[in-house]
Amino acid sequence: MAIHQYYEFRENVSRTMDLNCDIGESFGPWRMGSDLAMFEFISSANIACGFHAGDPTTMHGVVKAAVAHNVAIGAHTGFPDLQGFGRREMSVSHSEAYAMTLYQVGALTAFVHASGARLHHVKPHGALYNMAAKNRPLADALAQAVRDIDPALVFYGLAGSEMISAAKAIGLSTASEVFADRTYEADGSLVSRNISGAMIECEEDALAQVRQMLEGQVRARSGELIQIHADTVCLHGDQPHAVAFAKRLAEELKKDGVRVAAPTLLATRRT
Amino acid sequence: MAIHQYYEFRENVSRTMDLNCDIGESFGPWRMGSDLAMFEFISSANIACGFHAGDPTTMHGVVKAAVAHNVAIGAHTGFPDLQGFGRREMSVSHSEAYAMTLYQVGALTAFVHASGARLHHVKPHGALYNMAAKNRPLADALAQAVRDIDPALVFYGLAGSEMISAAKAIGLSTASEVFADRTYEADGSLVSRNISGAMIECEEDALAQVRQMLEGQVRARSGELIQIHADTVCLHGDQPHAVAFAKRLAEELKKDGVRVAAPTLLATRRT
Amino acid sequence: MAIHQYYEFRENVSRTMDLNCDIGESFGPWRMGSDLAMFEFISSANIACGFHAGDPTTMHGVVKAAVAHNVAIGAHTGFPDLQGFGRREMSVSHSEAYAMTLYQVGALTAFVHASGARLHHVKPHGALYNMAAKNRPLADALAQAVRDIDPALVFYGLAGSEMISAAKAIGLSTASEVFADRTYEADGSLVSRNISGAMIECEEDALAQVRQMLEGQVRARSGELIQIHADTVCLHGDQPHAVAFAKRLAEELKKDGVRVAAPTLLATRRT
Amino acid sequence: MAIHQYYEFRENVSRTMDLNCDIGESFGPWRMGSDLAMFEFISSANIACGFHAGDPTTMHGVVKAAVAHNVAIGAHTGFPDLQGFGRREMSVSHSEAYAMTLYQVGALTAFVHASGARLHHVKPHGALYNMAAKNRPLADALAQAVRDIDPALVFYGLAGSEMISAAKAIGLSTASEVFADRTYEADGSLVSRNISGAMIECEEDALAQVRQMLEGQVRARSGELIQIHADTVCLHGDQPHAVAFAKRLAEELKKDGVRVAAPTLLATRRT
Repeated sequence: MAIHQYYEFRENVSRTMDLNCDIGESFGPWRMGSDLAMFEFISSANIACGFHAGDPTTMHGVVKAAVAHNVAIGAHTGFPDLQGFGRREMSVSHSEAYAMTLYQVGALTAFVHASGARLHHVKPHGALYNMAAKNRPLADALAQAVRDIDPALVFYGLAGSEMISAAKAIGLSTASEVFADRTYEADGSLVSRNISGAMIECEEDALAQVRQMLEGQVRARSGELIQIHADTVCLHGDQPHAVAFAKRLAEELKKDGVRVAAPTLLATRRT
Repeated sequence: MAIHQYYEFRENVSRTMDLNCDIGESFGPWRMGSDLAMFEFISSANIACGFHAGDPTTMHGVVKAAVAHNVAIGAHTGFPDLQGFGRREMSVSHSEAYAMTLYQVGALTAFVHASGARLHHVKPHGALYNMAAKNRPLADALAQAVRDIDPALVFYGLAGSEMISAAKAIGLSTASEVFADRTYEADGSLVSRNISGAMIECEEDALAQVRQMLEGQVRARSGELIQIHADTVCLHGDQPHAVAFAKRLAEELKKDGVRVAAPTLLATRRT
Repeated sequence: MAIHQYYEFRENVSRTMDLNCDIGESFGPWRMGSDLAMFEFISSANIACGFHAGDPTTMHGVVKAAVAHNVAIGAHTGFPDLQGFGRREMSVSHSEAYAMTLYQVGALTAFVHASGARLHHVKPHGALYNMAAKNRPLADALAQAVRDIDPALVFYGLAGSEMISAAKAIGLSTASEVFADRTYEADGSLVSRNISGAMIECEEDALAQVRQMLEGQVRARSGELIQIHADTVCLHGDQPHAVAFAKRLAEELKKDGVRVAAPTLLATRRT
Repeated sequence: MAIHQYYEFRENVSRTMDLNCDIGESFGPWRMGSDLAMFEFISSANIACGFHAGDPTTMHGVVKAAVAHNVAIGAHTGFPDLQGFGRREMSVSHSEAYAMTLYQVGALTAFVHASGARLHHVKPHGALYNMAAKNRPLADALAQAVRDIDPALVFYGLAGSEMISAAKAIGLSTASEVFADRTYEADGSLVSRNISGAMIECEEDALAQVRQMLEGQVRARSGELIQIHADTVCLHGDQPHAVAFAKRLAEELKKDGVRVAAPTLLATRRT
């Protein structure tokens, strides 16, 4: 099947969804997340690269496990701030953002290659993700770094954000990310965590939101039904019910005839 | 010319020598070394990867400059100890040593690829270099990491050391490193810096030692003439007369009919 | 009661024991240990100072909690190696060891003073502890740093080790540390964790060992009964049954008429 | 002379000025600034505390030198960002800013006490300084930390900024800092470095500006003569002509009958 056929096929079905999760967020002696349990239900893993979490030994183990589970591997690139877990905004220059992306993606790629696989995507983390969602020149710097490493990499970013626009503008494949458990503003941005109702606590509501997103829509906080493009759903691996919800969502999608898969045909294993 | 022809040719001439230098040892706002000046005279550069020196922005600039000067690029891998500049021994496990090598080589490779070039070699730094010279299992871990990333990479290590043996044992190309300005013990190891006479201060004596090494010999501290295999001479870029000596050595080698070149035919530029 | 009276009193009773625990070993978003639960049963806390664990925000919270529980506060000083949790030996110079001790003790002292308390002791951590136990010049450097900050600080170190000798030699008060759950060699050193039987798994055996230590003796691995001086028992806060064992030990000591208290009369609160 | 007499005296003369310089900005193997040369001409030193620059060994050496030169010692507190030299804004919470100030001031204090001296002041660095100049809650957090360590410490901050207001509001002594080589806006803020004319290149102009500041005035970029309160002039130690300008300024002030001294009577040496 040629690639264009695949995309037609996928277009027709319209029933493929990627489930991604942030993985490898342990550091040194400290554990975080339920990496192994999540691998059962996700199709792609965003692996921390040592700047906001992760370290070489952690990365090595996690990459091997991801390959064993045939999960698409992405680099989860963040600010150099372990204490703040990459969640504190930093006023880096665009050339610094470019260079720190190259560095982290390269570091992870070494483990991926050593495991006989190939890197599938890049997803910015935390404050870097939030800043690049709204700041086009920063998004451009990140996208350029990804393309300069490998133009076949998929750029994961917030659906409808500057990250997606920047990546598309230089010809990268993109995966528009949506959240099962976050509510949206009418402009497609996420409701700030400081606002009550930002999180969807009820599992049924979260499932219903994903189903609606599969149809390209989401109900905004204002009540409006807005358009949203959903290629990949972000699951949180470090929360109490994370694994249970991931299992439930994967099962429900299957029942609905939706195939859970990473957004490209690229084989994870190198031939 | 086929590769086997090249090696025969090189064997016949026996008059090729690599001049390598540690490059990119600045960090953040702090400068070290005379990178640009050294590029004029060296054939290969060992670039710090952010663990003992260097940072993403520094690496980006230095890699571009190395490519512009057509210098073979190597990863200079060290202990995660910026304050100690990688010169303090650390009791890392072999799997930690393996993983930190993958990480650093991968990080540098991203900059090299983004500059349209390919990585040529890996050389451990400082305490890691000294420990691996004598510790075979540690040397094995480093060599394995290099091979798992790319079996075409050349492993640079102290001539006659466990690093060279370990790299050869798994089929890596090696470059046996010698020092123009250090004296040797009768067993081929370097005289400790704590011993008077460890450093050769006189430029003429250093040149004479390199000439002797080209013939496969060096006069040990004990007075004996011992065998030594020399593929590459290490030049220090951070010392007062570093650039002047590099210039002088390059000129003298040229006069002697020795070609200064990195130890493989691998093109630096990717096609 | 004058101080000399206290010490006579204590000598007579011979029935005071300090229970110490490593506290504040979380870092950034990562949790470790059961700090709050342990505060109920211990008399002194060794608080990580940001080099091997801990960070300013963690230290701030833990110090306030320690003061609230009226637990004697010590600085737990380690190697600058978060990833390795300070458990990897590093070949630092004695002047580096001296300076890193000053730095860490000073940093913790600021939180202690801001909480209206005073620092009680210093205990080296991990590889630094193990190295200084056997290396007198290193132990001297650590003890000197402690005395240069405040000669009233108590130096906690392995019973019978070079740390205790070094601290005594410059006039510091010392606390000889013993372990409830570790076995001993005939020379008073700990059985290496690599040897089977290094850990005492059975709670009753651990309690029996502490009772024996209160009498100044311990049964070595060789079967001999050797002399040991015990001022403080180290409890591990990061193990599954840590809190339960701490509770049990505190209760058993109380039943035996042993007072659980930090090894000096120094008030924790500043007047 | 009683303290109140001193302040009256100083009020009458109106001819005392502090010259401060950022000191101890080396890190590990990397050198920055001309610390020893600057000590000859300055009355107070802001010493980096290991977050944006400096390390324990550097701090130890620099503090001893400052004490030997009888220079008032301050803690130069910054963001935890060595690569960015503390010049990149970070969105830390106020409690994080409070804790990182305690940590750094405490760390430096240990070296100061070990050298038999006492800490004199605290001055935020780089992005932390610039942010706190405009952000009152952040300035409050920094001032609170300083007071919680020692209410006798002097808070150095940009003249007319929120830092000075915050410190005064909780009863700290303050030193209003001015710059010889920077131009000012009509509101008393510094002209941004991105605007041409932000720096005063001409030495004579810089001297003239300091003389004017001694009279409580400065000519703004707009041409207006505005009021400015100057307790301390910041000299830059890392620029080519830094030492020459410091020498010149110290000499000119002396000629004018101005006494160069740190802004309090607090003796540097502890008795």
